[in-house]
Amino acid sequence: MANRVGVIGGGQLARMMTVPAINLGLELKVLAETENSSASLATTVVGDYTHLQTVLDFSEGVDVITFDHEHVPLHILEALEKKGKSVQPPSRALAHAQNKLVMRKALARIGAPNPNWRAVSSKEQLEEFIAEFGPEVIVKTPIGGYDGKGVRVVSSASQVSDWLEPSSLSALGGELLAEEKVQFTRELAQLSARNSSGEFKAWPIVETRQKNGVCSEVLAPAPNASKELSLEAIKIAELISSSLEVTGNLAVEMFETTDGRLLVNELAMRPHNSGHFSIEGATTSQFEQHLRAVLDLPLGDTSMDQVAVMVNLLGVSNDKDFVDNYELVMKAFPAAKIHAYGKSPRVGRKLGHITVLDKSIDSALATANQARSAVLGVN
Amino acid sequence: MANRVGVIGGGQLARMMTVPAINLGLELKVLAETENSSASLATTVVGDYTHLQTVLDFSEGVDVITFDHEHVPLHILEALEKKGKSVQPPSRALAHAQNKLVMRKALARIGAPNPNWRAVSSKEQLEEFIAEFGPEVIVKTPIGGYDGKGVRVVSSASQVSDWLEPSSLSALGGELLAEEKVQFTRELAQLSARNSSGEFKAWPIVETRQKNGVCSEVLAPAPNASKELSLEAIKIAELISSSLEVTGNLAVEMFETTDGRLLVNELAMRPHNSGHFSIEGATTSQFEQHLRAVLDLPLGDTSMDQVAVMVNLLGVSNDKDFVDNYELVMKAFPAAKIHAYGKSPRVGRKLGHITVLDKSIDSALATANQARSAVLGVN
Repeated sequence: MANRVGVIGGGQLARMMTVPAINLGLELKVLAETENSSASLATTVVGDYTHLQTVLDFSEGVDVITFDHEHVPLHILEALEKKGKSVQPPSRALAHAQNKLVMRKALARIGAPNPNWRAVSSKEQLEEFIAEFGPEVIVKTPIGGYDGKGVRVVSSASQVSDWLEPSSLSALGGELLAEEKVQFTRELAQLSARNSSGEFKAWPIVETRQKNGVCSEVLAPAPNASKELSLEAIKIAELISSSLEVTGNLAVEMFETTDGRLLVNELAMRPHNSGHFSIEGATTSQFEQHLRAVLDLPLGDTSMDQVAVMVNLLGVSNDKDFVDNYELVMKAFPAAKIHAYGKSPRVGRKLGHITVLDKSIDSALATANQARSAVLGVN
Repeated sequence: MANRVGVIGGGQLARMMTVPAINLGLELKVLAETENSSASLATTVVGDYTHLQTVLDFSEGVDVITFDHEHVPLHILEALEKKGKSVQPPSRALAHAQNKLVMRKALARIGAPNPNWRAVSSKEQLEEFIAEFGPEVIVKTPIGGYDGKGVRVVSSASQVSDWLEPSSLSALGGELLAEEKVQFTRELAQLSARNSSGEFKAWPIVETRQKNGVCSEVLAPAPNASKELSLEAIKIAELISSSLEVTGNLAVEMFETTDGRLLVNELAMRPHNSGHFSIEGATTSQFEQHLRAVLDLPLGDTSMDQVAVMVNLLGVSNDKDFVDNYELVMKAFPAAKIHAYGKSPRVGRKLGHITVLDKSIDSALATANQARSAVLGVN
């Protein structure tokens, strides 16, 4: 059986993939950027993923290539595919997670629910969009954005004049993405997986709560989600993953609008922060499922037996490691599941997360928040 | 915080300790016997654990030494302790898991329930014991036995005449252990953990079912265990672990006798086959708990939310790897949690296990047995 998975990128997602690889006896190899990456335990090559020969050499020792992030240049993935390498998700799918304009166009084509959007390449075009959908709109760089970076809320084209300068605009692909500022009641995420045989499975929809543009809490399943809403979200995820031929995990970040609709915000084709709850909270974790899916193995059961709340641990200092607070937090919260990514501390950096399972979201959330304060040493 | 754990032995127990080490961001180093050990991912040294300097060198890079097995000679552990190294469990505790006669004497001293037993060093002494407790009795070599090896059911001293020969007997420590053949209804195991600050936590008692002297199935919690029996088992485990100053995990294998008593059969001071169910079945797995305990961190919650059945995967062939049957078994049993130890196949070898969680033991057991047949390719 093909059982050697090569992961490009040595972040916490690659790190967390090592766990199901150990459990299932699969071989995991990681091409990491640095020696002391989060996934250093499984790292077999340290090198530059934008360098074709490095990636080709790495691919020699594995059956399938997959990803910790979506930043590998498409021409490199296409070159791998031309040489007969199995790239999962394939470049034609991943293109939609790399470029937000490519995504909007594809979602419009397949009939998935977009907010109002437009590709703009000049001050005038953006002002026109603002006049139609403002007073405030969202402007995004099609590539290179994450965790709130590359995204601005603007009421005038002058607020993105730096992006519209010819040299910047050309580096960003020639166009910016303008989107209406959706009036939403909350943000949801629908995580699913699909293998190349076409089997599709979804976890329960979750609510994600952001702070300063970065995911802070995930409530699984999303509280007060109607059966209709849940089914609609899964239908959207299945439409996208089958139409775009996604393999592996697909996270569809969505807005629930004030008038009760779901609109797609972002796509990720890999394990995703909104799915970390599944490590303890679901029969099959998103990391195990991703490995199964990219190896074209049958997918695992995604049901949950209790509710789960996951809270991110963002650095509050540039020198103190939160592992030093384990004694305190473990004593007070014996049921909290703490995850540390082995990264050096930095203010605002994602250093780990905590998951709490319980009978009710409210009590899980309260425990998780208290445990987070204790491990970070904040109040 | 002290967070570097050195494990002596590179078997599946060390392998499974890597998972909570990854989750919690602890540093795990393994001194393995061979390059391609089950724990090769975390192996930092390949060497001989009976060689003092090898073990001393290994101990330099870690905060605490613990074990995948109980075969490290006591004099080596004592030498480490004399140099101020933290050995968990300490040699004075581990002595009881290394030598069954030392164990019987200690259990008698602290008042834990032994079957009738005697140290014998001659044919005559053994015949006398058989006359008193026979017609059949159990004879065990005090050291070196596991999974049914070093254990014989005898009705005459001539059946262990090889062990009683002067040269063998001297290699075994000068005495054999004779025990009554206990009339039992079933075998139980009480898994617990204790840190050096004295905190103690136990998982629910489990029923273990053996085939040919090797653990085949574990039912957690043990079906039809009364509250009295469960409390009695925990009391025994706590008595042993505090009296013998055990740190880390303690597995107490017990007989439930036909007249309703619990008698101690064996002790192990490390993660144990009877506790594998806890990986998915309990809030804190035995592997996480062992790491917490040996680092003297507060212990995690041991409660279970569903029942669990674990079945061992013993090799049925010397060449076929059961990983090749993943497609079949994953398709039919999407909720089965499969664990492969990365060992080369051999008939009868412990190559992995499967855990199934469910609402009832009967249905979990049925699913687990069917999944085992499917993954092993037997009927």
